[in-house]
Amino acid sequence: MINIAVLGYGTVGSGVVEVIEKNKEMVNKKSAQELNIKYILDLRDFPGDPYEEKVVHDFNLILSDDSVSIVCETMGGVGAAYQFTKQALEKGKSVCTSNKELVARHGPELLAIARDHSCNYLFEASVGGGIPIIRPLNYSLTAEKIEAITGILNGTTNYILSKMEKEGAGFEEVLKEAQENGYAERNPEADVEGYDACRKIAILSSLMMGRNVDSEKVYTEGITNITAADFAYAAAAGRSIKLLARSRAVSEDEVLAMVAPFMIGRDHPLAMVNDVFNAVFVTGNMLGDSMYYGRGAGKLPTASAVVSDVIDCARHQGRVIMCFWDQGNARLSDISSEERSFFIRGKSGEERTVESAFPEGRLIRIEGRAEDFGYFTPVMREKDFMEKCKALEDVVLGRIRLL
Amino acid sequence: MINIAVLGYGTVGSGVVEVIEKNKEMVNKKSAQELNIKYILDLRDFPGDPYEEKVVHDFNLILSDDSVSIVCETMGGVGAAYQFTKQALEKGKSVCTSNKELVARHGPELLAIARDHSCNYLFEASVGGGIPIIRPLNYSLTAEKIEAITGILNGTTNYILSKMEKEGAGFEEVLKEAQENGYAERNPEADVEGYDACRKIAILSSLMMGRNVDSEKVYTEGITNITAADFAYAAAAGRSIKLLARSRAVSEDEVLAMVAPFMIGRDHPLAMVNDVFNAVFVTGNMLGDSMYYGRGAGKLPTASAVVSDVIDCARHQGRVIMCFWDQGNARLSDISSEERSFFIRGKSGEERTVESAFPEGRLIRIEGRAEDFGYFTPVMREKDFMEKCKALEDVVLGRIRLL
Repeated sequence: MINIAVLGYGTVGSGVVEVIEKNKEMVNKKSAQELNIKYILDLRDFPGDPYEEKVVHDFNLILSDDSVSIVCETMGGVGAAYQFTKQALEKGKSVCTSNKELVARHGPELLAIARDHSCNYLFEASVGGGIPIIRPLNYSLTAEKIEAITGILNGTTNYILSKMEKEGAGFEEVLKEAQENGYAERNPEADVEGYDACRKIAILSSLMMGRNVDSEKVYTEGITNITAADFAYAAAAGRSIKLLARSRAVSEDEVLAMVAPFMIGRDHPLAMVNDVFNAVFVTGNMLGDSMYYGRGAGKLPTASAVVSDVIDCARHQGRVIMCFWDQGNARLSDISSEERSFFIRGKSGEERTVESAFPEGRLIRIEGRAEDFGYFTPVMREKDFMEKCKALEDVVLGRIRLL
Repeated sequence: MINIAVLGYGTVGSGVVEVIEKNKEMVNKKSAQELNIKYILDLRDFPGDPYEEKVVHDFNLILSDDSVSIVCETMGGVGAAYQFTKQALEKGKSVCTSNKELVARHGPELLAIARDHSCNYLFEASVGGGIPIIRPLNYSLTAEKIEAITGILNGTTNYILSKMEKEGAGFEEVLKEAQENGYAERNPEADVEGYDACRKIAILSSLMMGRNVDSEKVYTEGITNITAADFAYAAAAGRSIKLLARSRAVSEDEVLAMVAPFMIGRDHPLAMVNDVFNAVFVTGNMLGDSMYYGRGAGKLPTASAVVSDVIDCARHQGRVIMCFWDQGNARLSDISSEERSFFIRGKSGEERTVESAFPEGRLIRIEGRAEDFGYFTPVMREKDFMEKCKALEDVVLGRIRLL
């Protein structure tokens, strides 16, 4: 029997308990032994909860109990979660987490501590919710040199963009609705500004590079400037708009990483990823393109990924599972030298201005839209594009990168 | 250093050598030691080949060399491949294979032999080419009760159907073209009759059930009856036609499995899987739907999957990697009691006959098509549908299941 402690009895934590309970037989079979939830750490009490008696308030109780060998950190944040994770690993207890913020911030340090204490720090649930992506990168695509990763990594923004596309609605309106039905937080900044996707692409990029990619240095742009008009032009051009988190290995120790809205062709596999679904598109030097798709968030999908880590720990007690993520930092390329096409939404009457600033592009108009026009620039350097846009501040109403 | 023998220096075998060579640094790092190709078994000689000197003709040389610990079986077939695999495993040498026919036929027996000799029999490349699917099922979705698997598992047929759809061309014409450019074999039966997809879904179903699913008992229908006309009606109804391999757990020991062309909605994630790409759509009881997409065939993608197995073997020498696939057979449900809608292509003038045989369906016509009409039946039992079709032999020109 393996004793487990769950830190944080919120959405994911209670999901972990539910998955282990509901799929008990399967989970124990796959673990090759019985998993027993011994403690649930939370500041609150849960009178009437079937696990009421397992709830404790003092982490030291868990830390000092040598019979606990696996800890699920489902608290979130980088304060207590960091301290508890570190202390648990130093005691040789494996930690499984859904906390992308902590993994992005302290991943390599915590992995090193785990290694030194012959236990494991696993974080399948930190990216893509229930989608298996960390393990495929670490265990499956091992014969590949991963060249690039492009993901739809945030369910809230994908839900908002899908809804804007389907209903022709504006950002604020859809955000409000998403907040009302629980698909967006009351403070939606981490999602809509792209910070959440940024942490996740930093984690994936670190695994791709084998070196640490500092999430705070990743260029990040959210979706707050995307309008219903942009979707109208995208549709007219046979495209969709998605918040993409992208990463490309430039050299052994240099990576280009960014988060921004992109207009993508409708025939791209990522274009069909709608609503709260997430997907990760991986390009390897032998396999070419592969994609991993599923529910990127939600109680049970996320909990399922945490429990798959628990099972992995159970089967590897005293053995370190391979994960290449060194503490040395990868260099981040300046995105301003990237080359691509851009979409511009311009102010009506200024077609000539835009055409002469970005010659040889493609102008599109939509019947009934008198106030603006659409324009696709030829392939150009990001730096040149931005400089020209700045000079045309009153003319360029909106701009979106093309994939 | 780990010594490897490659059995069969054909497409996949030479790909294995190429992947290990090209990604040497990465592969050795992930293996935590150096991989060395010591032997290549083939009946032919390869004068001028850089690996010419490693080529041997006698398997016993490999078998009796205790320094060889991993064997890649890329010969195909169920004759010598079976004997060699068995003998290697009995000697404690792990075997990695792309041979779906052998895995489908003798998987559980070979897994048991591997277990008894503390080595491994791995077959990631046997389904979905380079797409990681066996390992996600075995290692990632471990906290899930897998309820259903639906896959596009054969690249040749998917290429043919995609081309028919895009170009409005007929089956024979596209097949001929596919044969000419190497996307289809000269004897295409295993692909176009669905046998290849059948073996693969039998393997996936066996892993889903933990029991053996006999591929010879899986209902299998190919794509030879699909016409350009069927695609015209599918398009008119916002649908596509795909050869799907499906499997659903009915109970602990009973499974419903089948291979057949299906009309699927364009918004289904599998609808965007075109050309030689494959995808596996998995439904779990906690995670819900997830999908794994990529190149389902081809030299390097398939070889990459074989080498990922080699790396796994290298990291687990002397230890058995978990794989639940018992020798006991799962029961196969009779598909005739399944319920679904069907598409019928009927002979013009017989609209009334079809409508009265399958009341409350939906008739569709396409301008310019005088010879036939389309009809979607309401949901009904497969058995009832087939009986009625039989009675209308002269009226029903084509029929396709709906997903």
